[in-house]
Amino acid sequence: MNSKELDFLISALTKHNPFMKTKSFMDWFFSRQQAHKFHIEQIPFEKLEDWSFEPSTGNLTHASGKFFFIEGIWVETNVGRISQWSQPIMNQPEIGILGILAKKFDGILYFLMQAKMEPGNINLVQLAPTVQATRSNYTRVHKGGTPPYLNYFLDKSKSTILVDSLQSEQGARFLRKRNRNIIIETSKEVPVLDDYCWLTLGQIHKLIQYDNIINMDARTVLSCIPFAAPELQNMGVSELLPTVKKLGTVDMSYVRCDFDEFQTKLFTSATATNEGIYDSDTIISWLTELKVYYELNTERIPLKFVKNWHKTDYQILHDEGKYFAVIAVAVQADNREVASWTQPLMKPQESGIVAYLVRNINGVLHFLVQAKVEAGNFDVVEMAPTVQCVTGNYKDEKPENLPPFLEYVSNVPPEQVRFSTFQSEEGGRFFQEENKNMLIELGDDFPVKVPDNYIWMTMGQIKNFIRYNNFFNVEGRCLLSCFGFM
Amino acid sequence: MNSKELDFLISALTKHNPFMKTKSFMDWFFSRQQAHKFHIEQIPFEKLEDWSFEPSTGNLTHASGKFFFIEGIWVETNVGRISQWSQPIMNQPEIGILGILAKKFDGILYFLMQAKMEPGNINLVQLAPTVQATRSNYTRVHKGGTPPYLNYFLDKSKSTILVDSLQSEQGARFLRKRNRNIIIETSKEVPVLDDYCWLTLGQIHKLIQYDNIINMDARTVLSCIPFAAPELQNMGVSELLPTVKKLGTVDMSYVRCDFDEFQTKLFTSATATNEGIYDSDTIISWLTELKVYYELNTERIPLKFVKNWHKTDYQILHDEGKYFAVIAVAVQADNREVASWTQPLMKPQESGIVAYLVRNINGVLHFLVQAKVEAGNFDVVEMAPTVQCVTGNYKDEKPENLPPFLEYVSNVPPEQVRFSTFQSEEGGRFFQEENKNMLIELGDDFPVKVPDNYIWMTMGQIKNFIRYNNFFNVEGRCLLSCFGFM
Repeated sequence: MNSKELDFLISALTKHNPFMKTKSFMDWFFSRQQAHKFHIEQIPFEKLEDWSFEPSTGNLTHASGKFFFIEGIWVETNVGRISQWSQPIMNQPEIGILGILAKKFDGILYFLMQAKMEPGNINLVQLAPTVQATRSNYTRVHKGGTPPYLNYFLDKSKSTILVDSLQSEQGARFLRKRNRNIIIETSKEVPVLDDYCWLTLGQIHKLIQYDNIINMDARTVLSCIPFAAPELQNMGVSELLPTVKKLGTVDMSYVRCDFDEFQTKLFTSATATNEGIYDSDTIISWLTELKVYYELNTERIPLKFVKNWHKTDYQILHDEGKYFAVIAVAVQADNREVASWTQPLMKPQESGIVAYLVRNINGVLHFLVQAKVEAGNFDVVEMAPTVQCVTGNYKDEKPENLPPFLEYVSNVPPEQVRFSTFQSEEGGRFFQEENKNMLIELGDDFPVKVPDNYIWMTMGQIKNFIRYNNFFNVEGRCLLSCFGFM
Repeated sequence: MNSKELDFLISALTKHNPFMKTKSFMDWFFSRQQAHKFHIEQIPFEKLEDWSFEPSTGNLTHASGKFFFIEGIWVETNVGRISQWSQPIMNQPEIGILGILAKKFDGILYFLMQAKMEPGNINLVQLAPTVQATRSNYTRVHKGGTPPYLNYFLDKSKSTILVDSLQSEQGARFLRKRNRNIIIETSKEVPVLDDYCWLTLGQIHKLIQYDNIINMDARTVLSCIPFAAPELQNMGVSELLPTVKKLGTVDMSYVRCDFDEFQTKLFTSATATNEGIYDSDTIISWLTELKVYYELNTERIPLKFVKNWHKTDYQILHDEGKYFAVIAVAVQADNREVASWTQPLMKPQESGIVAYLVRNINGVLHFLVQAKVEAGNFDVVEMAPTVQCVTGNYKDEKPENLPPFLEYVSNVPPEQVRFSTFQSEEGGRFFQEENKNMLIELGDDFPVKVPDNYIWMTMGQIKNFIRYNNFFNVEGRCLLSCFGFM
C-alpha cells in the first residue's frame, strides 16, 4: 500500500479526471454561480436581526450567544513601532470544522469540493471544502438543516484520516481563533450533490493559479497536505519523479511529469524534510528565543472602551480610516441552510500583500520564513510569509521604516516572479478582502544571512511544522498551498 | 561527528566520572547541605515583606509587580464530575530559564549540576540545573547578584544548543506558566564553583532512583533529551547496544552494556520513533478530536471573588481543607543572591501519585499516555502520565468513581513495579510537595484497548512530542525523566 504522502503526490501529479475535465470546470463553476440568486446589501446596524450592541459592553453579539461576537482588545508589546493600542476584534471561541472528503477512484485520490456562496466573497461563489461547519452549525443553533456531508466527519467508520490538526486564523482580526483542518478518505458511497464535484489535487493546484477561485478555507486545509513520502526518503533529485511513477500502484499513464525547471525545484523542496540548512531542533530553538524575547500582552476589553475608533450608523471604523471597518450586511440566498439572514462583516480599508521569497541553498529551494507577532495569536509568535502586510499602511513611509523585504518585493523584476495572483480571505467574516499572493525566486547572490526573526526552510520542513498546530499562521499556510508544483 | 542523540546516549551509558565518582556524590551532596545555614519558618501573611494583598482585588502581589502573583480563576468545563469552580492560582507571566550547561571531556558529555536550596524543598537542598532564572532574576529586580553561569545562556557564542523548547508547568496550580528548557554544550572554559559538579547522564539517571534528590526543574530539562540517534535508525533490538559501542568515537571502555531485560526494553523504546502502533499523525488526530470535544473556559478573577476558600492569618485554604493552601514563609540563607527574604508558597493538603503503565506491543515497550484537562493549561489538553492524581481526594470514593487505572496502580503486585520513588515539586513555589512516582509493567494480557482519552506511545515518540512544546505536561515529562534505562 502507498503511504498517504505518496497518494497525495500521485493525485497532485494527476490532471486526468473522468468526472470533471479541467477545461470543463469553469463552465460548471459559472453555472453554479448562476444557479442561485444571491443578493448582498450593506445595511445600518439597526437593521441587523438577532444581532445587537450589548448595552453594558458595547460588544456586537448574536442573541443566541453563539457564532462569534465583536469585542475589544487592549494590546501591549515590545515588537514593532507601536507599543500600545486597542482595537475591535472578532471572538469565536468554538472550534469549527473545515473538512474535505476524499475518495479513491481507480486508485487515484479525488477531493470533493463545493461551489459555495459566502456574503463577503468576491464573485460571491468560490470553491470551498466539502464541509465548513461551526459548532453552532452542527448543533443547529440557527435552526437550519445540517450541512451536507457533515456526517462523514462525525462518524468516521469506514474512513481513514489523512490530515487532522487545529490551525489558527487571522491573528490581526480574530482572538485566538482556530479551526479543525481535516481530510478524510472514505470507502463509503458518496452521492454528489449539485454544488459539489470531485477534483484531483493536480486540478485544484491548477485552479489556484487563477484569482479568487479557491477560498481561504480550502487553501488552509490543502496547506496541511504532506508530500514527503517515506518511499522517497534519501533519494536524489533526479530520481524522485521516476520513482513516484514506478511506485504508483495504479494506472500511471495520466501522471504528469513534464515539469519545467522551477516546478522540479518546488517538487524537490516539498519532498525534502532533512535537507534544510537548519534542522528542526534549530528552528524550534530559534522560535523559542523569539517567544522569550517578544512580549505580547493582549487583554479583552469591552468594545466601547476601544480608543481611536468610532461608530456610525453603518460602520465601526478607525478615526483615521485605517485598518478595517466593521459593517453589517443583509443576505438573500436560496441554497443555504437558511435562506436569508443578516450579519456583521469586517471590511478591509487597504489591500495587502503576502509573499514568499525563495532561493536555492545547497541544491534545494528554501523559503524565507518570518516569525510574526499578531495581537490575536495563540502563542505570541507564529511563522508567516516573508512579507505579510497591508501595503496601504506604508504608502507615505520612508524606505527605512518599511517592513523588511517589502521594498524588494514591490520592485522585483518580473522575470523573478514565479506566482502572482489575488486570493480571498474568508467570505463568511471578511467583506471582499483579497490580498496579492506572490512567490519570488531570488538569485544565488541574495544574502543567506537575514534579520533575526527570519529563517530559511524547505517546503517539506514547513509542511512538517504545520502538522504540529500553531506553528504557521493562516497567511503562511494559505500562500504555501498555492505552490503545489503549479 | 556523532549526532547529539548519540552523544546523549553515550553519556547515559557512562557512569565513569573522573570529577565525581558516583559513590562519592552523596558525601559531596551532604557536605553542600551542611555548608550553608538555612532557616525556613512559616509566618503570618502580615509579616511578608514586599508582598501584600491588593485592596481592590485581594490578589497577593509583590511590590515590584514582578516574580509571580496569586489571583483567582473561574473555571467551566465539560470534563470530569465538577463542571464549575473557582480557585486561587499562581500567575507568572514571564518565561524563565531552566538551563543545564554541558561540556565534553575526553569526548563524553558531562552536565553541570547545582546543589541548590529552595525554601519549599524536602531536605532543603536538591540537585538542580546549572541555572534557574526568572526574567526578574536576570534583570535583577531583586537587586541581588546575577546567578552564576547565566552568561553562558545569554551569550551563546562557542556553544551548541542541544535542547531548547518552551515547556509548561503545573496546570492545576499555574495559569499558563512556561519555562524555557535549554541545554547548551560549550567549548569555553567552565570554572566549577563550590555548589556545582559535573555528572554524566548515567550518573544523574542513577541518582533519580533515590527519593527527592533531583529537583523538578532538573527533571523537566532532562526529559527533553532525545535518544533516537539517526545512526541507529531501522536497527534491530539486538544490534542497538553493540552499535552504540561501535559508533562511539571516544574511549568506550567505561560504557555500561550490562542491561537486564527491562533496561533493554526501556533503551529500545527510547530509540524507537517509528515502531509505535500509532504513527504521529494518528496521535495528533486523537489529540485534535479531544481538543474539539473538551471545553475549558478559564477566566481570571480577583482572588477575593474565589468561592469556597477563605483566608486566615496564616493561610488561604479550601473550606473543606482540600487541594492546597497558600502560606507564607521567611527564609534565611547565606548562599543565595539575596541572603534573606519572605515569600508565599503553595502547600499541598494531600499526597499524590503519578504513574506510567507500560506494556510490550509488537516487541516494543509502549507507555499508556493520558490526555488530561487542567484549568491552567495553555491549550485545554496536554498529554500526561497514565495516572496523575491527588490520592487523598478519592479516599472515600467507590471504585467506579475513581480515575481510570488508579485502583489498578494502588493494588499492583510488587513484582510488576519497575520504579517507585518520591519526587519533589518545585521548592521555589511549593512547600514540601512530593508525589509518588511509579513505573508499572503490564502483562501481555492487559487489554490494548483503552478509554478514548488514553493512547499507547513508545518513549521515542513521547520524546518527539516533547520537542514541539505544549504536548506533554510537567508531570508526564518529569516522570519520564526517571526512566533513563535505570
